[in-house]
Amino acid sequence: MMSHLLGLEDIDLFTIKQILDQAKKFKEIFTRPIKQVPTLRGKTIAQLFYESSTRTRASFDMAIKTLGASSLNLNIAVSSVNKGETLIDTARNLEAMGVDAIIIRHPMSGAPYLLSKYLKIPIINAGDGQHEHPTQALLDIYTMREICPNLRGKTVLIVGDIAHSRVARSNIWGLLKLGAKVIVVGPSVFIPKDIVNMGVSVSNDLDKVLPKADFINVLRIQLERKGSDIFPSQREYTNLFGITETRIKKAKKNVVVMHPGPINRGVEIDSAVADGPYNVILNQVNNGITIRMAIIYLLLIRAVTKSATYTRSQSKK
Amino acid sequence: MMSHLLGLEDIDLFTIKQILDQAKKFKEIFTRPIKQVPTLRGKTIAQLFYESSTRTRASFDMAIKTLGASSLNLNIAVSSVNKGETLIDTARNLEAMGVDAIIIRHPMSGAPYLLSKYLKIPIINAGDGQHEHPTQALLDIYTMREICPNLRGKTVLIVGDIAHSRVARSNIWGLLKLGAKVIVVGPSVFIPKDIVNMGVSVSNDLDKVLPKADFINVLRIQLERKGSDIFPSQREYTNLFGITETRIKKAKKNVVVMHPGPINRGVEIDSAVADGPYNVILNQVNNGITIRMAIIYLLLIRAVTKSATYTRSQSKK
Amino acid sequence: MMSHLLGLEDIDLFTIKQILDQAKKFKEIFTRPIKQVPTLRGKTIAQLFYESSTRTRASFDMAIKTLGASSLNLNIAVSSVNKGETLIDTARNLEAMGVDAIIIRHPMSGAPYLLSKYLKIPIINAGDGQHEHPTQALLDIYTMREICPNLRGKTVLIVGDIAHSRVARSNIWGLLKLGAKVIVVGPSVFIPKDIVNMGVSVSNDLDKVLPKADFINVLRIQLERKGSDIFPSQREYTNLFGITETRIKKAKKNVVVMHPGPINRGVEIDSAVADGPYNVILNQVNNGITIRMAIIYLLLIRAVTKSATYTRSQSKK
Repeated sequence: MMSHLLGLEDIDLFTIKQILDQAKKFKEIFTRPIKQVPTLRGKTIAQLFYESSTRTRASFDMAIKTLGASSLNLNIAVSSVNKGETLIDTARNLEAMGVDAIIIRHPMSGAPYLLSKYLKIPIINAGDGQHEHPTQALLDIYTMREICPNLRGKTVLIVGDIAHSRVARSNIWGLLKLGAKVIVVGPSVFIPKDIVNMGVSVSNDLDKVLPKADFINVLRIQLERKGSDIFPSQREYTNLFGITETRIKKAKKNVVVMHPGPINRGVEIDSAVADGPYNVILNQVNNGITIRMAIIYLLLIRAVTKSATYTRSQSKK
Repeated sequence: MMSHLLGLEDIDLFTIKQILDQAKKFKEIFTRPIKQVPTLRGKTIAQLFYESSTRTRASFDMAIKTLGASSLNLNIAVSSVNKGETLIDTARNLEAMGVDAIIIRHPMSGAPYLLSKYLKIPIINAGDGQHEHPTQALLDIYTMREICPNLRGKTVLIVGDIAHSRVARSNIWGLLKLGAKVIVVGPSVFIPKDIVNMGVSVSNDLDKVLPKADFINVLRIQLERKGSDIFPSQREYTNLFGITETRIKKAKKNVVVMHPGPINRGVEIDSAVADGPYNVILNQVNNGITIRMAIIYLLLIRAVTKSATYTRSQSKK
Repeated sequence: MMSHLLGLEDIDLFTIKQILDQAKKFKEIFTRPIKQVPTLRGKTIAQLFYESSTRTRASFDMAIKTLGASSLNLNIAVSSVNKGETLIDTARNLEAMGVDAIIIRHPMSGAPYLLSKYLKIPIINAGDGQHEHPTQALLDIYTMREICPNLRGKTVLIVGDIAHSRVARSNIWGLLKLGAKVIVVGPSVFIPKDIVNMGVSVSNDLDKVLPKADFINVLRIQLERKGSDIFPSQREYTNLFGITETRIKKAKKNVVVMHPGPINRGVEIDSAVADGPYNVILNQVNNGITIRMAIIYLLLIRAVTKSATYTRSQSKK
């Protein structure tokens, strides 16, 4: 295991599989009458969120509690940022308080990497700008492997605003390492020109590539970001790229539809599909807990012997 | 016990008494040196609040902790609502994360009922629009019964803005089921025309009905809502309906004054009354913990064998 | 031990030493594999913050968890304040809910004193207006004594906006009781005229008094408060009072630099100093946990036999 979970670009296949395997082991806990283990009792994990989030924070909270640890939630948007403290100082303060790991979400790409240079405790990236969202990609991959244990040669469509999606980027890095084929699909304004360098195919025609898909990962269209300069209209996007029941019939019979949430029903995905037999959206949410448990567990047992270095009892005078 | 606690309109007398009896049993815990039991260890209860609340959320938090469970607090106002996710999707996500019950407060009447149709886990209504606030009514009734074990034939005045009060509605349903007489009192703009259909009496003259009262439940005047279209002035309301020490002398010697809080001192109630010998306001707050413990406990032991249904390990391909 | 921790002005030397000694004992817990003790299991401590805070709230949270208790965090800024409830009513409600102690931060000087008059449970001042911040001062003093066990005769410079600083005031009261000499340093607009009555010296010339300093406690310049009416410019402040590496060379060889955080790097302190060998800033943060543990522990074991007085089961009718 590595010292931090910063992204899937820099992680090796062995570590990805180690996380997926550990998550599988943890899944058994949820069949017990008491769904909690004392594994990480006495540990505290800080959730340092510079962007609001319901589901990711809640998912980490559940993972932390299930492992017997406790979480320290920091509403950074309304406090220290106002007071002008740097990100590194805030994080080093948490480390000095005895926090055992930091989960960070930040609008700036690279923020978790920055922290990992300055801190000794594990840093977990819960989404950094438009860069990576590795825990989401790992839970997506875990969900795919529950259905199809070997992803080698399988084709995954990622549909939506690829350019602004950290979910897409992390999925691409992870899926390619596991041997899957990835086709990114969307209007050309949503597809970065150099994305082929990552090793994916590109299509602007969903209907044409749908028959190849084993999995379709539908990205959320960020309605709050969209403007006329980005795409003609939401209606046009939905017509060309919205996943409807009619459209899904063009795909393979056993195609699996995924979505990282939150869903815009009737925009990028129809309710008939989101709630239909093809979808594994709530399985993704459910697997988010065990994946995050696995990541926290593997990072913390590795870091277990590190102790605070703030005792300075020697008399200097 | 029912599967959810949605309101007191649809609940039977047996269940009301079951909750009140269970609360009485739990009260003993607070006399112990360690005020906590391991009864619901490993359980997580989500607090999904779409309206801000200090006291209700805190009361549920205390109840959850005392039962050995943990709470997951969701600041919905600032996150997923912005992202346009539906209430049902948010709740289903929490269910998929393994949350054992959801406590919901929502400005829309009926929101908890909606969730109960779509989710398998227990839903607890912590206030929905101007509809119901059943846990408040149950703690009010519990507090009355501590003083007067049989409420049959006793007269309860509910004074204030009945039309906009979910507390009033839940109290009316509960009190009538227990055989009490209810008189709603306020200026006619605050009394819905059809309220008599619920089985209560109506009065616009507090001084006239005061001598009949065994209990007076004083509602908070929502100063933030008040406008000239609703009532002439706060001063006029206070003159006619404010509970003062002078006025309280017109009531029975042992009359009990209640208030769901937060109090507007000098508006709907004078400090001399709010802090006087007739009041049980802090008893209500104290009983809120045991009532909420009883509700959570009864719903969760009923739901105990339900397990997550998100394991989909069968290979489809 | 006293019943509350309201400030260092009214506390005696014996109690200060009792807290410092208890903190020292608690420090050993952090060398254990499981950094948590069951000492205060079942206790709940409310954090009633009327001003936003990341670090102080987080520090108390860590202290509470380490003692095996749990904290109830109240975002007062966005809820009951809007509803117009008085501070005392909010606090009495928490007491009625069974909370074992209240930690309060409030913009109004004296707010914790007010609560201590009306409540039976211990009140801990986490900062009141421009009055006192006793837990910060105690952790500052603890950190100094780790380096220099006897502060008698040592000289401490407190540099910055003394007039608006509750940290300065609490430090002054505490340090003088321990026999240290205190020099407050800053532009005259930042120094209250009557401060000499507290027993400190005053200087407007940092470079002149630097050679005397054993410790320099650098206050944060509150950029959000500063205006042209308060001080000519930030640049001028930095030139005259900013702690730079050049300037620090004028001090004693073993001078120790402290800062209560959050730091404005390049304003009141340079990064070379804040991260340099003289600084104990993260030691202060680290010691904040044990100091707060000691305070909570000493107050709660004293209060242990107090029980709720809200049982009113006698039938009145």
